[in-house]
Amino acid sequence: MDTPHGFSGAVPDPSVRRLSAYLRHLENLASIGVKRVSSRDLAGYIKGGDAQVRRDLALFGQFGRRGVGYEVDDLLQVIRTILGTRIQWNVVIVGAGQLCQALLRYPGFKDRGFTIAGAFDTDPHKIGKPCGPVTIHHVDMMTPIIQKNNVRLAILTVPAQAAQQAADKLVEAGIVGIMNFASTSLSVPEHVFVNQVDLTAHLEQLTYLVSSLPVG
Amino acid sequence: MDTPHGFSGAVPDPSVRRLSAYLRHLENLASIGVKRVSSRDLAGYIKGGDAQVRRDLALFGQFGRRGVGYEVDDLLQVIRTILGTRIQWNVVIVGAGQLCQALLRYPGFKDRGFTIAGAFDTDPHKIGKPCGPVTIHHVDMMTPIIQKNNVRLAILTVPAQAAQQAADKLVEAGIVGIMNFASTSLSVPEHVFVNQVDLTAHLEQLTYLVSSLPVG
Repeated sequence: MDTPHGFSGAVPDPSVRRLSAYLRHLENLASIGVKRVSSRDLAGYIKGGDAQVRRDLALFGQFGRRGVGYEVDDLLQVIRTILGTRIQWNVVIVGAGQLCQALLRYPGFKDRGFTIAGAFDTDPHKIGKPCGPVTIHHVDMMTPIIQKNNVRLAILTVPAQAAQQAADKLVEAGIVGIMNFASTSLSVPEHVFVNQVDLTAHLEQLTYLVSSLPVG
Repeated sequence: MDTPHGFSGAVPDPSVRRLSAYLRHLENLASIGVKRVSSRDLAGYIKGGDAQVRRDLALFGQFGRRGVGYEVDDLLQVIRTILGTRIQWNVVIVGAGQLCQALLRYPGFKDRGFTIAGAFDTDPHKIGKPCGPVTIHHVDMMTPIIQKNNVRLAILTVPAQAAQQAADKLVEAGIVGIMNFASTSLSVPEHVFVNQVDLTAHLEQLTYLVSSLPVG
């Protein structure tokens, strides 16, 4: 299948995750004026091997030259093209609690092309109040705001028991990608993607590693 | 190397991540009284194949019976043992901003065995104020509080430019696992593990998938 980003075929999930990590490292390098990077340097950042880096990047064509490495600016643009982030994306948040407040101030979103275009809740005490730079609207206002701002992505920060209903409303309003903080799996139509966020899993990866340290 | 969780050898990162996902699903099943689960059902939850599930679990020994599946309660205990979460873990947070407030209310932590034992900041306006159920202390108080509460894990939510210094202080105080929200890589001694959290990467995985949808 030919796709808007110009690449075809299925790319494994972990590779896409690593592309985001390479992008972070390249952005940091670019910000301090570094022009060129080796696959070994990229590998160091993801704590992997350089063969892994070359395999990941080879999925999308030939970049870099043996013994010379990659031009930072070129690789930045290529990865942004692959990830679809050379354009600005509007995102809405459903569930205007503390996490919403934190996400609206999360520097990574704005810096990397994501603008929060609206926040929604059902709690009458929250409606009309500010959540960071946006105003909290009732979920009934979702469809017009999503459609007016051409929003395709949403972040779900509602409690688990409210998540499916909120997801249904989002899909109805035209959302095709949901970043789900609720600890429940969502049923969505085939054309909609769900990315599950599990912050506890990060701690569990640490407890796994720490528990495997020799005692004493 | 023999380890406290009773398993040995290197287990790939993605498998550990999937163990957390299986655990989520098993906890949800247990909460509604389900007693048995098939590898196909677990595979559905992670949107993977059942061979993948069997491979992941086989890394840790033989569980489940062909045609019968896994006992939910048994598998829950096994995975918690592997991940090291049959015990309660105390965690501290450094950087007492909005994200700290949100994390202190994040239901996944307490439900799954993680207790926030302290929050630290350098801002004199925050010291002594509450952050959720804990009081914000000056970072100079880190060592006694970490040692008194036998804390081994920390969550870092400071700005990128303050992250390395905070990590150094944490390591000095005895922390061996850091969940790092700052968009910068940390230098730590070999016995310390860092788990990088990149919330933007979740959105980038969605833009990657959404961009690959046929247009129109």
